[in-house]
Amino acid sequence: MSEIDRMMAANESWAERFPGSRPVRPARAVAVVACMDSRMPLFQMLGLEVGDAHVIRNAGGVVTEDTIRSLTISQHLLDTRETLLVHHTECGLQATDDVSFADRVEQATGRRPPWAARAFIDAEDDVRESMRLIAESPYLLSHAVRGAVYDVETGRLREVT
Amino acid sequence: MSEIDRMMAANESWAERFPGSRPVRPARAVAVVACMDSRMPLFQMLGLEVGDAHVIRNAGGVVTEDTIRSLTISQHLLDTRETLLVHHTECGLQATDDVSFADRVEQATGRRPPWAARAFIDAEDDVRESMRLIAESPYLLSHAVRGAVYDVETGRLREVT
Repeated sequence: MSEIDRMMAANESWAERFPGSRPVRPARAVAVVACMDSRMPLFQMLGLEVGDAHVIRNAGGVVTEDTIRSLTISQHLLDTRETLLVHHTECGLQATDDVSFADRVEQATGRRPPWAARAFIDAEDDVRESMRLIAESPYLLSHAVRGAVYDVETGRLREVT
Repeated sequence: MSEIDRMMAANESWAERFPGSRPVRPARAVAVVACMDSRMPLFQMLGLEVGDAHVIRNAGGVVTEDTIRSLTISQHLLDTRETLLVHHTECGLQATDDVSFADRVEQATGRRPPWAARAFIDAEDDVRESMRLIAESPYLLSHAVRGAVYDVETGRLREVT
């Protein structure tokens, strides 16, 4: 059985204990923006229930045009009013840089990506940069944003100020 | 206490029952691309453990340049080899269209977004379009992709073929 078949089978068990439907608008009016890292089960990590908060994730948890698109939809259509950013320790994007990554993709595929990997050195600095990008976006209704770094060795979030 | 303060407090309980650290490479070599919808707790829905799979999420679960950036990093740096797409019923992006959404943002903020909302009408069709975009991306090492629609009323995934 493939890994995706196993996930589809596990979904049967979830459907059997499904807690029931919830409204489309997030009950706690928060959007979380986080890295795609496999070690961050955000619902469990933040005590979220089904229906509580939007969850936006990409490589690094960085703020890209797509992150702003998602947050703009979250706020204008579905009434969220606060954003929480979650980066983490030992991120794959700290183990490369944009030029080395583009070289690597070009060597493996013959095509050089026209977009940057968005590698970074310091997770806290990148959280601050992401907070700045949200604070300055002209499309959002609320610029209320806080950020944190998740320690993948302890499970603990440390707020970035 | 604000909602984000409540999430930070809930994280203390998570850290107390933290299952331990895991390697950065996803154990099951899968990346999941899903909508940001608050009603999809992906780890629980798919039976994922900490460290199993990358999770990429945006408004709609659509395949954008940022999705391709994230998947390219997932495959080239962290060795995932299959992608699972998860859209869902009753998506906020089915309740608008790109022009109405841009009008709404412009009326509320005075600025018209230069990017499209990426609204869609039929979730299954958009899963198929997203599968096509992944199959055709020149930057990926693996084009193995499957897609499903999650029913927010029952908790059940239905595979799209």
